[in-house]
Amino acid sequence: MTKKYQVVGIGNALVDVLCHTDDAFLTENGIGKGTMQLIDRNRAVDLYGRMGPSVEVSGGSAANTIAGIAALGGRTAYVGKVKDDQLGAIFAHDLRAQGADYAVPPAPQDAGAETGRCMVLVTPDGERSMSTYLGVSEHLGPEDIDATMMAEAEWLYLEGYRFDGPESHAAFERAIASCRSAGGKVALTLSDPFCIQRHRDAFRRMIVDDLDLLFCNRAEMLEIYGTPDLDAALGQAAREVETVVCTDSENGAHVLAGGERWLAPAVPTQIVDATGAGDLFAAGFLWGVTHGHGPMTAAEMGNVAASEVIGHIGARPEADLMQLYRTHGLV
Amino acid sequence: MTKKYQVVGIGNALVDVLCHTDDAFLTENGIGKGTMQLIDRNRAVDLYGRMGPSVEVSGGSAANTIAGIAALGGRTAYVGKVKDDQLGAIFAHDLRAQGADYAVPPAPQDAGAETGRCMVLVTPDGERSMSTYLGVSEHLGPEDIDATMMAEAEWLYLEGYRFDGPESHAAFERAIASCRSAGGKVALTLSDPFCIQRHRDAFRRMIVDDLDLLFCNRAEMLEIYGTPDLDAALGQAAREVETVVCTDSENGAHVLAGGERWLAPAVPTQIVDATGAGDLFAAGFLWGVTHGHGPMTAAEMGNVAASEVIGHIGARPEADLMQLYRTHGLV
Repeated sequence: MTKKYQVVGIGNALVDVLCHTDDAFLTENGIGKGTMQLIDRNRAVDLYGRMGPSVEVSGGSAANTIAGIAALGGRTAYVGKVKDDQLGAIFAHDLRAQGADYAVPPAPQDAGAETGRCMVLVTPDGERSMSTYLGVSEHLGPEDIDATMMAEAEWLYLEGYRFDGPESHAAFERAIASCRSAGGKVALTLSDPFCIQRHRDAFRRMIVDDLDLLFCNRAEMLEIYGTPDLDAALGQAAREVETVVCTDSENGAHVLAGGERWLAPAVPTQIVDATGAGDLFAAGFLWGVTHGHGPMTAAEMGNVAASEVIGHIGARPEADLMQLYRTHGLV
Repeated sequence: MTKKYQVVGIGNALVDVLCHTDDAFLTENGIGKGTMQLIDRNRAVDLYGRMGPSVEVSGGSAANTIAGIAALGGRTAYVGKVKDDQLGAIFAHDLRAQGADYAVPPAPQDAGAETGRCMVLVTPDGERSMSTYLGVSEHLGPEDIDATMMAEAEWLYLEGYRFDGPESHAAFERAIASCRSAGGKVALTLSDPFCIQRHRDAFRRMIVDDLDLLFCNRAEMLEIYGTPDLDAALGQAAREVETVVCTDSENGAHVLAGGERWLAPAVPTQIVDATGAGDLFAAGFLWGVTHGHGPMTAAEMGNVAASEVIGHIGARPEADLMQLYRTHGLV
């Protein structure tokens, strides 16, 4: 029986505030280059006041992935919390306008926290350094998980960043149980090395107990297994999860599945803004595996989708991804 | 005596909502290509719901001009009204972060209207078609005009779009009187042919009575004098205003001053998004004339600034304009 959704994603619903800056600004403001750090509202206001003119684009890691799948015509839905405010309306609009379902009711106007936002500082090398005020996105709980929707998902896609939410574990458990009991599969992205440090045990438990597919990049793969040896880490991951995909910047993406290992070469691109590269890789990969493609082809699709999004400002696709797949001979 | 400001601008404070679309969408939604139409809040909500994923960037015609002057290091300030909401905070931040003064207090949270926004639909040819919900920006009145600030301006720069506000005429009168009595000069941009149709008499009176400098494009120049003959219209304008600058797309900019007439050639550019071309032309021109350059060089500076902003999405400069002036041998 065909399920209603190919992929349902759960993540932190954020609007990105993108600003070009230099490395000195990162140093002066104590921002670790290339990482994501959580900040509170006071720090968000202070940092924003120091930042240059910015551009606002809907973001959120899993939401970017879901938007990418929707842009490819996939049947997809997103679960994440915004407030009934202007940024929340922007976030909801952009997902729905892309063709994804998004039905989580916004927190009311008298809710304490606002819609979350991510200050994305882009340095001349194209690297992005993120300071995230989670706002109301932090409070997504099990009551926000629609068990019926989860049962209608071929794949559930979980964002590792969500481990920072106080009720996130209960929410993930409910989602996983509902999806699994209806025969669905579960994927997770490790999201960020520091997030792994904060919640290592929970990540490790989920990897062993719940996953069919693990997404990560090189730094996250080394961090989760506490080793500098990528091959050793990849080997352990492959013993724990059916399919493992580890992006490795310009080296491409390592794919381990069914006892085999491939390297899908990166698509050469001028990096304008690396924001969303991993998110769109996951979009391309998930679209591939839900449309009859094997993991190697799916990884090539992920690389093409990632190359599109790093070629411009913002983490949502702008070009026609399907056309790019045709150009690359993937469809 | 050196004045505090080289240019003070007054306009509608708006956040742009930019979306790529096709010509069919414009037709289906009754949007006139290349123009600006005013819409109410219901229509804004309805239109936004039909639009694709969008990007938010601070806009507003005169605000774009002031941001451009600030980006060049000019001493400048802006007068326009936002609400104390998220879009208002974005608008204020982007102007101040660019180096412009912006001191108009936002309308309180219980104000009826929100911060204004402009839905900018960009077609594949780079043309932009705008649907503007003025929101609280409409209600800028004489009480919002700081006479001291106006007296501290070498140039007052007025946005023609503001003629649509109910109290705009009184506000403009107060600003002009304060600026003039302290020896300042007054510039106006005609903004839009339909806006001229709505307020033709008021525009004509201001041109004859108050202006030292008139900005417009070809369509506006023909509209204001009700003639299809550009040379005739330019001639009449030059008899009424000391300096007249009329942009004419790829033909360049016509400059009439001191009984002479020049054509400043356009800078060839790939048009990505024409939004802000006229605004940044005015920025480059005003920076030029307030930094010791004659009107012909100032017009060349305007053309370079315009070429930068049409090369990317959004109406605020992203590249280093001064560096571009050096590249073009203008400074």
